[in-house]
Amino acid sequence: MSFLLKFFKRQMNFSKRLKSKVGYIQKILEDDIYLIGGQNMIDEIFERGQRVSSEFFIDTVWVKMLVTDENGVFDTQVYNVVFEPAARTHWHAHPGGQILIVTRGKGFYQEKGKTARVLKPGDVVEIPPNVVHWHGAAPDREFVHIGMSTRVHLGPAKWFGPVTDEEYKSAVEEK
Amino acid sequence: MSFLLKFFKRQMNFSKRLKSKVGYIQKILEDDIYLIGGQNMIDEIFERGQRVSSEFFIDTVWVKMLVTDENGVFDTQVYNVVFEPAARTHWHAHPGGQILIVTRGKGFYQEKGKTARVLKPGDVVEIPPNVVHWHGAAPDREFVHIGMSTRVHLGPAKWFGPVTDEEYKSAVEEK
Repeated sequence: MSFLLKFFKRQMNFSKRLKSKVGYIQKILEDDIYLIGGQNMIDEIFERGQRVSSEFFIDTVWVKMLVTDENGVFDTQVYNVVFEPAARTHWHAHPGGQILIVTRGKGFYQEKGKTARVLKPGDVVEIPPNVVHWHGAAPDREFVHIGMSTRVHLGPAKWFGPVTDEEYKSAVEEK
Repeated sequence: MSFLLKFFKRQMNFSKRLKSKVGYIQKILEDDIYLIGGQNMIDEIFERGQRVSSEFFIDTVWVKMLVTDENGVFDTQVYNVVFEPAARTHWHAHPGGQILIVTRGKGFYQEKGKTARVLKPGDVVEIPPNVVHWHGAAPDREFVHIGMSTRVHLGPAKWFGPVTDEEYKSAVEEK
């Protein structure tokens, strides 16, 4: 009987410890979900926005405008871009330059004539004015970045044709 | 005795259910860590960077420069700012304007003479040139935003004294 009581007591303590652990982990999760913005996806800071219907993108890309700067107050436009796996831009260049800030997934950035650079969350890409380049997702991973078009008074992007499947494959190979 | 056995059995089942719940929640957490990019902190996109030692900030603030734009190519500087709970800037204004993109936590933005705005992840603040304002964390929560100083050729921020404890308390009250 004393053995049973001891066993029973141990069992109660174990349950108590587990309960407190569940409470602790749930607290972290809730904070985290809240912290990341109470979105229905815990890993999204922004909504996906509009699906891009442009001849200058390959596969599915979503853009949410964050700062349109219609009055030219900031001379800068800001947007969030979600590339689905293998989606990418055409070759293009910005007369005023562009800055990318990677927030999620895995992607690539390549300047014409150079090897591609792998991009992961926290990476920043400075694209000087008039440098011909493309950016997009890894073949099997989504890729999300904040984009900033700087000195937009210098004019809109110029486009130089698709990144072919051969160019894409060669860029992402073994990375 | 049969009563004790029944009680004991119930207790065992309860432990089993709790254990499976812990496993499930841990799985979600691990997935989450992967989605956010394999960082060691599940909610951090960038490293904290340098602790700010400036007379123009109250309490502990960390800044990581993302784009210094030393050559003026983009006319824009970009940085990540972490405000610890209750930390805040002094009142200030940017001759070229500033854009904030909130990525984590809870904070506030207030323009002189207006009521404060609560900020949560995904929020964007457009601060026009020369508008006197402050931004900072909620009293009990960290607050993280990406900041962009635009049209930096127009000159550095101008400072107008601390956000006093009274101003801060009144701003964050009941929000």
